[in-house]
Amino acid sequence: MPTYKLSYFDVRAYAEPARILFHLAGVPFDDHRFPHGDGTWEKLKDKTPFGQVPVLYVDGFEIPQSAAIIRYLANKFGYAGKTPEEQAWADAIVDQFKDFMSLFREFKLAQKAGKSDVEIAKVASEVAIPARDSYFEIITNLLEKSKSGFLVGDGLTFADIVVVESLTNLEKVHFFDASEHPKLAALREKIYAIPAIKSWVDIRPDTIY
Amino acid sequence: MPTYKLSYFDVRAYAEPARILFHLAGVPFDDHRFPHGDGTWEKLKDKTPFGQVPVLYVDGFEIPQSAAIIRYLANKFGYAGKTPEEQAWADAIVDQFKDFMSLFREFKLAQKAGKSDVEIAKVASEVAIPARDSYFEIITNLLEKSKSGFLVGDGLTFADIVVVESLTNLEKVHFFDASEHPKLAALREKIYAIPAIKSWVDIRPDTIY
Repeated sequence: MPTYKLSYFDVRAYAEPARILFHLAGVPFDDHRFPHGDGTWEKLKDKTPFGQVPVLYVDGFEIPQSAAIIRYLANKFGYAGKTPEEQAWADAIVDQFKDFMSLFREFKLAQKAGKSDVEIAKVASEVAIPARDSYFEIITNLLEKSKSGFLVGDGLTFADIVVVESLTNLEKVHFFDASEHPKLAALREKIYAIPAIKSWVDIRPDTIY
Repeated sequence: MPTYKLSYFDVRAYAEPARILFHLAGVPFDDHRFPHGDGTWEKLKDKTPFGQVPVLYVDGFEIPQSAAIIRYLANKFGYAGKTPEEQAWADAIVDQFKDFMSLFREFKLAQKAGKSDVEIAKVASEVAIPARDSYFEIITNLLEKSKSGFLVGDGLTFADIVVVESLTNLEKVHFFDASEHPKLAALREKIYAIPAIKSWVDIRPDTIY
């Protein structure tokens, strides 16, 4: 078995779906985490392929970009969809999440930039909330059509994991209320009830994002 | 062979890499294009999976999201990379392009919103140009390390097509000057010289993006 190392900040965010896939598959990996501001990232940055983390090292071979990492692991471990069409749908859902995040990012940047409450509220109501509503509607529609309760086909794919983690992250910043979205909440319960996922989620570091 | 239909606006943009893959593979497809503003899109929107185009129909089965479509076709036609690791790299490059576009989008939105020249110039200098420079640097570094002249491994992948089309689109809006980026220009020449691509690029509709 190859030696895996996943390098990222000490948060869930863009690395967590990959971590969940390792735990799900029961494959050991070096969960290399570093805090913001201790200098590790500044030293590592120039050595990464794109100046970004997460980076997955597979016997030293580097793979950048979170979605590429997750898809790679999902293919290895059997969670990428059972047919080319299922795989395309899992991909499309993850891309939809990425599109949402590129809009939601504007809200996070406004917060980070220390903008006024009025300005932050404006970005929230004009950009972040409509983007979230559209994303939730797409996922909810898929779940309404699903016979299995999973987003794609009749089994777990990396798309379920990415979406569920996005809900948990949005909940932490008060952009997801499980009681208002029963279909989304049910998906999260279903995924977090899978024993190999549950045992990790129960003990993972409790970070804000 | 399945019946393929690709629905999109009458522009290159997010559908063009898929069109190129069809031409490259010599696989016939219905290149369904519609102009902005003639009512076709307004009628089609609610019937698409995510309220967006492009959508690829494979014997009627729908696949949304441009990167998912391209990856699906690249897998079918043999341009997705020769190993799981090559595929992950092609994926990562396309994701990097998407990340760039999510920043570059702010510039396009400022233009669309009819903001003042000063405001547009501010978004260009603070967001769009740094994002472009970072994207170009990443791609140029990959090409400097490449022995084949392709971005991944020793052959053409969908990542080359996505990157090359991004250069052509950026050139049209004066954000890419081939004379300043010889490595990027050489990649584009190499890809556009492939006979099955050349014969399409030579005759394709000349749209602004």
